[in-house]
Amino acid sequence: MTNGNETRTGAVMAAIRAKVVGRALVSGDRLPSIRRFAAAMGVSPSTVVEAYDRLAAEGLIRARRGSGFYVAGTALPPLALAEAEPRRDRAVDPFWVSRQSLDADPSAMKPGCGWLPAEWMPHAALRRAMRTLARGGDAALVDYGSTRGSPALRRLLLGRFAEGGLEASPDRIMLTGSGTQAIDLICRFLLRPGDTVLVDDPCYFNFQALLRAHQVRIVGVPYTPAGPDVGAFEAALTAERPRLYITNSALHNPTGATLSPRTAYRLLSLAAAHDLTVVEDDIFADFEPEPSARLAVLDGLDRVIRIGSFSKTLSASIRCGYIAARADWIEGLVDLQVATNFGGPSPVATELIAGALAGGGYRKHMEELRRRLARARHDMAARLEPLGIRPWLMPRGGFYLWCRLPDGQDSAALARMAVAENVVLAPGNVFSVSQTAGSFLRFNVAQSGDPRIIAVLRRAMEAHRAA
Amino acid sequence: MTNGNETRTGAVMAAIRAKVVGRALVSGDRLPSIRRFAAAMGVSPSTVVEAYDRLAAEGLIRARRGSGFYVAGTALPPLALAEAEPRRDRAVDPFWVSRQSLDADPSAMKPGCGWLPAEWMPHAALRRAMRTLARGGDAALVDYGSTRGSPALRRLLLGRFAEGGLEASPDRIMLTGSGTQAIDLICRFLLRPGDTVLVDDPCYFNFQALLRAHQVRIVGVPYTPAGPDVGAFEAALTAERPRLYITNSALHNPTGATLSPRTAYRLLSLAAAHDLTVVEDDIFADFEPEPSARLAVLDGLDRVIRIGSFSKTLSASIRCGYIAARADWIEGLVDLQVATNFGGPSPVATELIAGALAGGGYRKHMEELRRRLARARHDMAARLEPLGIRPWLMPRGGFYLWCRLPDGQDSAALARMAVAENVVLAPGNVFSVSQTAGSFLRFNVAQSGDPRIIAVLRRAMEAHRAA
Repeated sequence: MTNGNETRTGAVMAAIRAKVVGRALVSGDRLPSIRRFAAAMGVSPSTVVEAYDRLAAEGLIRARRGSGFYVAGTALPPLALAEAEPRRDRAVDPFWVSRQSLDADPSAMKPGCGWLPAEWMPHAALRRAMRTLARGGDAALVDYGSTRGSPALRRLLLGRFAEGGLEASPDRIMLTGSGTQAIDLICRFLLRPGDTVLVDDPCYFNFQALLRAHQVRIVGVPYTPAGPDVGAFEAALTAERPRLYITNSALHNPTGATLSPRTAYRLLSLAAAHDLTVVEDDIFADFEPEPSARLAVLDGLDRVIRIGSFSKTLSASIRCGYIAARADWIEGLVDLQVATNFGGPSPVATELIAGALAGGGYRKHMEELRRRLARARHDMAARLEPLGIRPWLMPRGGFYLWCRLPDGQDSAALARMAVAENVVLAPGNVFSVSQTAGSFLRFNVAQSGDPRIIAVLRRAMEAHRAA
Repeated sequence: MTNGNETRTGAVMAAIRAKVVGRALVSGDRLPSIRRFAAAMGVSPSTVVEAYDRLAAEGLIRARRGSGFYVAGTALPPLALAEAEPRRDRAVDPFWVSRQSLDADPSAMKPGCGWLPAEWMPHAALRRAMRTLARGGDAALVDYGSTRGSPALRRLLLGRFAEGGLEASPDRIMLTGSGTQAIDLICRFLLRPGDTVLVDDPCYFNFQALLRAHQVRIVGVPYTPAGPDVGAFEAALTAERPRLYITNSALHNPTGATLSPRTAYRLLSLAAAHDLTVVEDDIFADFEPEPSARLAVLDGLDRVIRIGSFSKTLSASIRCGYIAARADWIEGLVDLQVATNFGGPSPVATELIAGALAGGGYRKHMEELRRRLARARHDMAARLEPLGIRPWLMPRGGFYLWCRLPDGQDSAALARMAVAENVVLAPGNVFSVSQTAGSFLRFNVAQSGDPRIIAVLRRAMEAHRAA
């Protein structure tokens, strides 16, 4: 069997495992027919046969003579979130971009990754904060932090919330180990296996990876340039009775779109009518040229939970996130963080972040970043145009361009070819629950300056056209 | 109703909620009878009636005329791990010590807490590592780390494992956000709600808090001065079919006991016969005067998972833990950490830790710590003797003394009185699944130097005797 066949077989196996782990298929359920699943996965029927046979050998499924394959009744194997394969042969699933970009060697070009290059970050401010900490702060250097995290940083955040129109009392905020950990804590607090969660389609790929870990059903709502499609959102609330909706408002990942005030109002009204809780990930807030509508501001932290972090603007190494929510929920979430991580985030981390945020330096750093990114967005769009790759919309801020490929091109195929040339791309379907974004790529304009990237893309597109 | 009654009612409500969340009681189950539960909780029957009535008003349970109270069939409320009450009135549950000591004001005396005083930690080495990092390391300051964490620190750990007789290849280790997070990842990977987990009785209180968050059944095995009682361990394996056993070997928390080689061998044989996975938390390893038996060394990381961290020896602020296990499990755990925390631990944290561990300074720091702690253990035992408080055994190392109170004294009552005088104690039952350690206190000898601690203890014991 060729390597390509191996990869495709692995992808089919991973897709079935994901359905079992995510409880889309439970013990006794019949698997999709070979013909239908082959069409859905874009592989040959013999590939699906091979994959089903191997899963049967593993004991996850079993064949019934003349009637197809069924999920076996045995205990679940350890939680398998993704196919464990050699790095470059991994299935293009929601883990693809994270692993490829987190573990890329330093020479790799990463137009698909989700953060700014190291040299765009505020080193001077961080080094200054670090020298200050090295001189003082005995306890901050060695002690656990308080359960809600640094009071100074929480005050600072509440002040920034108030500037944005969200007045919140101190019992409504806690610091966490990271922004991702903030969402994870909320999911553990509010969800049970088998619950249903709404996300945007497309959405940040790690929302899907995280929700798989919680063994919940994931339902996507098509995203429009003004936010989620309100009709589809309402239909999903009625048909699926989700417990939670997770979204970004200001600068949506991956599209860069901004939620309109009208859509925000309608979403909130629907959420209230269906008793839906909303997690609004505000991580890109500081990249906006001017503030836009926020669900948390309209709602006042009643059914909306705001989360965020400093990974995109200050440092992804000095990790800290936050949760702002109802006071009684914060109380429960603090206990959960103590149980699962003992204490709040590292005092060293929160001191360094509070130090780098204090004073006027941070505001200047962000102004400069916004100017630089505006130029980079337009430059990148101009460089992609000759390839026929075009932004779905031109974002108001941030570092993402969500781009459509010319007809006939497949972003997963391009991503596989590019990674062999040391370029990490972010293919559309890793962001798409419905797997309908195969003709999109997400570009990080701050990571796309190297001219080799355009050359690799061009070659890969030509090779795909020829094949 | 008086405050004392309020507290007792809250404690009964918390105990029932914990049973429901932990699935010890599921929908339709009958609650313990009022008379029996009153006796078990040491409260009056009218307190239990009040608590049951309030839980019924909340909808968690319902009364059936003439036949008692039953768990209601409604959906579970958000995960409630502990009773949310004003700080000092909280129930003495597994969260009591964490919250009291993490959120204590700086003037509080904390003989019950689980870490060394700030001034006992290696500040000079940490400050030096911080200054070095502030000068160099652009990427380490601002980038995400690789998914398995700093290669330098992993190599360093593998070298230390080898010194202790455990040879492991690099694909068997990953770094995590903390030691607690390491156990949490393992539980998420291997456990499903309703599974059963064995712990020592007594054991580190946060094991119970963590396991409650996973909604598993917790079964305790009585702990002897040579490790868990092997007969009880075998009986539990047969009767309860646990998936996991979590323990400390070298210096057990809270007793300070050491696992004997003979017990280690018998435990492992039983684990193999019953296909049990073991998590060995090696966090106190460096406090041993000389190495003792380790399950991970005997087993070679087949069914034993080793975890640890640097919180007790270097810094609890610069957080990082590790997991050493089967290579295929590490692969799955790495995905899970990416999904739930995006990336491995902070590069700033791992650089600082690797910096502080390198060179001979760390070895000298630990030698000095061991000498100082040996003195402190004997001093504290001598100061407790006149109160009739005696160590269950004299540990070979570490900072804990697990002490029995004189007849008639109750450690939860003493802890409640002491906290009103700004002294945080660790009452025995927070460590005990079976709630049979009410006459024990765990002392941290490094946090017990202040003479007011003995004075407060003496007054509280006299008050309790008089009452």
